Amino acid sequence: MTDPIDPVDLTAQLVRCASVTPTEGGALLLLEDLLSGAGFDCTRVDRGGVSNLYARWGRKGANRSFGFNGHTDVVPIGNPDDWSVDPFGAVIKDGFLWGRGATDMKSGVAAFAAAACDFVRDTPPDGAVILAITGDEEGDALDGTTALLDWMAQNGEAMTDCLVGEPTSPNHMGEAMKIGRRGSMTAWITFTGEQGHSAYPHRAKNPLPAMARLMDRLASEPLDQGSAHFDASTLAIVTMDTGNPATNVIPASCRGTVNIRFNDHHSGASVTDWLQAHADAVAADTGIAITMKIKVSGESFLTPPGPLSDLIGTAVQAELGVMPELSTSGGTSDARFMKNHCPVVEFGLVGKTMHQVDEKVPVQDIQTLKAIYGRVLRDYFA
Amino acid sequence: MTDPIDPVDLTAQLVRCASVTPTEGGALLLLEDLLSGAGFDCTRVDRGGVSNLYARWGRKGANRSFGFNGHTDVVPIGNPDDWSVDPFGAVIKDGFLWGRGATDMKSGVAAFAAAACDFVRDTPPDGAVILAITGDEEGDALDGTTALLDWMAQNGEAMTDCLVGEPTSPNHMGEAMKIGRRGSMTAWITFTGEQGHSAYPHRAKNPLPAMARLMDRLASEPLDQGSAHFDASTLAIVTMDTGNPATNVIPASCRGTVNIRFNDHHSGASVTDWLQAHADAVAADTGIAITMKIKVSGESFLTPPGPLSDLIGTAVQAELGVMPELSTSGGTSDARFMKNHCPVVEFGLVGKTMHQVDEKVPVQDIQTLKAIYGRVLRDYFA
Ligand SMILES: [Zn+2]
Ligand SMILES: [Zn+2]
Repeated sequence: MTDPIDPVDLTAQLVRCASVTPTEGGALLLLEDLLSGAGFDCTRVDRGGVSNLYARWGRKGANRSFGFNGHTDVVPIGNPDDWSVDPFGAVIKDGFLWGRGATDMKSGVAAFAAAACDFVRDTPPDGAVILAITGDEEGDALDGTTALLDWMAQNGEAMTDCLVGEPTSPNHMGEAMKIGRRGSMTAWITFTGEQGHSAYPHRAKNPLPAMARLMDRLASEPLDQGSAHFDASTLAIVTMDTGNPATNVIPASCRGTVNIRFNDHHSGASVTDWLQAHADAVAADTGIAITMKIKVSGESFLTPPGPLSDLIGTAVQAELGVMPELSTSGGTSDARFMKNHCPVVEFGLVGKTMHQVDEKVPVQDIQTLKAIYGRVLRDYFA
Repeated sequence: MTDPIDPVDLTAQLVRCASVTPTEGGALLLLEDLLSGAGFDCTRVDRGGVSNLYARWGRKGANRSFGFNGHTDVVPIGNPDDWSVDPFGAVIKDGFLWGRGATDMKSGVAAFAAAACDFVRDTPPDGAVILAITGDEEGDALDGTTALLDWMAQNGEAMTDCLVGEPTSPNHMGEAMKIGRRGSMTAWITFTGEQGHSAYPHRAKNPLPAMARLMDRLASEPLDQGSAHFDASTLAIVTMDTGNPATNVIPASCRGTVNIRFNDHHSGASVTDWLQAHADAVAADTGIAITMKIKVSGESFLTPPGPLSDLIGTAVQAELGVMPELSTSGGTSDARFMKNHCPVVEFGLVGKTMHQVDEKVPVQDIQTLKAIYGRVLRDYFA
């Protein structure tokens, strides 16, 4: 039995790779090297200028295949002068490791890679351990985890369960795991009437009152009151625009945009129907033509509480003495893709400093996270 | 008794003066020459780069002083290639006199100047006839009729009644005189909340629903149902703007503008109070700060039906066989200034082509208008 892999050192090495999306930056090469050395079959799945890494220990098609998913790409650093450290220096001070990706999520990748290497070496399981690591999560994610899943389907590769290592706790390590996410969609709405003079509104067809009325109704009517595992769906008006500088002119058209985060009471299609019904009612009231362009960025999904969330909860409880809450809050992650493949739960660090200047992670948390992931693997294959 | 002055020829001479605001273009000089020759005391009242002409026949401080008000400035011609004639050529064809200012309102000025000269020469009245002619009606009107009224006040000059010679009929000569005008005001409204992420609307303070609600209420609640001499007041939302391109961002602020035309049920101050009450209610509902900048361009005013409108109606009836309706519709004119001095009514030509390409006036209408104005003078001093 050799020494365990230090996830703090591995995080530091990854932070030193300047892998701002879509740059690989050496991060996946470093992991491929480590994992190959630990007996993983590694495949680079590159698509559309993006690099991804698929690594499997154990037999393809094993009855039980536990998977981890994560990303090595990071968001830009912004103005380097705003940082109190080198954002790619991975300096350790005051008990923290500092740098871009320190929490989101090179530490998470390092923790599961280190845990997986130790686990397969010390207690080789009857099954497979799979790491699906992408370099395109912070970008538009068209050629990242999706490319890995496409390649897996074509090559008969499969996970039976998946743990995504994204930060999941708002303030304290172990507070929350995520068992689902709300769906997200945007509607761009255009209102068209007829131009005229402000002094004679009855001779024009002013589109602005129609916009005000529709937007007031959309913002005032709750979509739902929440569900068993989800908060209430939300609708945010994000912009309304006309661009008419002349106070004596009624403009011919205007436009507004709403962004909706919806829970499992809804789908992109059902919310679209709801929007359309309101638009039709206002169009009928006002005589203004209302058209919508809709983009559904992701449907809502839920991995119902069960064996996978129990497994992770038990491991967190054992290492930290707290039972994480089952959360469905937050923005999108690649769990929205993995959920089409197998049950998926997310558990990772405290996300507080992610995407910010002076992003940092307590070194102790990285060790704890590795311990939790190791315990998950041992319990899963026990 | 010499020949009467031809108002068509005088209109043509005035049209040939290219007096686009604020250019004098020779128009007032021409009138000053004519009126001085007819025995009027003429004073040029120039202010702020604008020329105006005050002409009085008869004694200052006379018991009865009938006044005419009009303007010689004209709006720009736009693209000369769009005209089928020289816009400053005053060509006469097909029974029309063509050119910029043909209806608005060199013909009106020519008609009252010609009528006044003939009247004082043929039947010198016991009283004064006053012409207050400005070169700044189509501009911002800060140094036009206002300058004339200021000068009159300083010099003890006064009219007992005033007839403004602007076009007043929509389609047929004699259809309407104007005995008042609606007030006009604009409110620029700013809504300020707190920026945030669209996924967490409860952590932000979105100003857009507050704008939608306030604008919906303002556009939905009638200000009144009209009054004895006025149509209902109107409110037109003319723009709503945010300028937020990011669908995942809730913006910190947005702004909207409304333009209001109000009748004699209201004043600029009372409408301001009404707006403020609605804004306060929405601010209280939503927690969004709402501030308003308000500009009252003109208060509503009415010269109640009485001796002046009767005088004009009788003259129109005698010349045209129709009794003009007492109207208060339309945009602003210098009557809004004259009404602070004395009773004021507007009567003039058909306004259909004013401010347009190929502006034109039937030559017969100019003759008829002069006849009406002459009859008004004779009846007034009879
Ligand atoms: Zn991430
Ligand atoms: Zn005019």
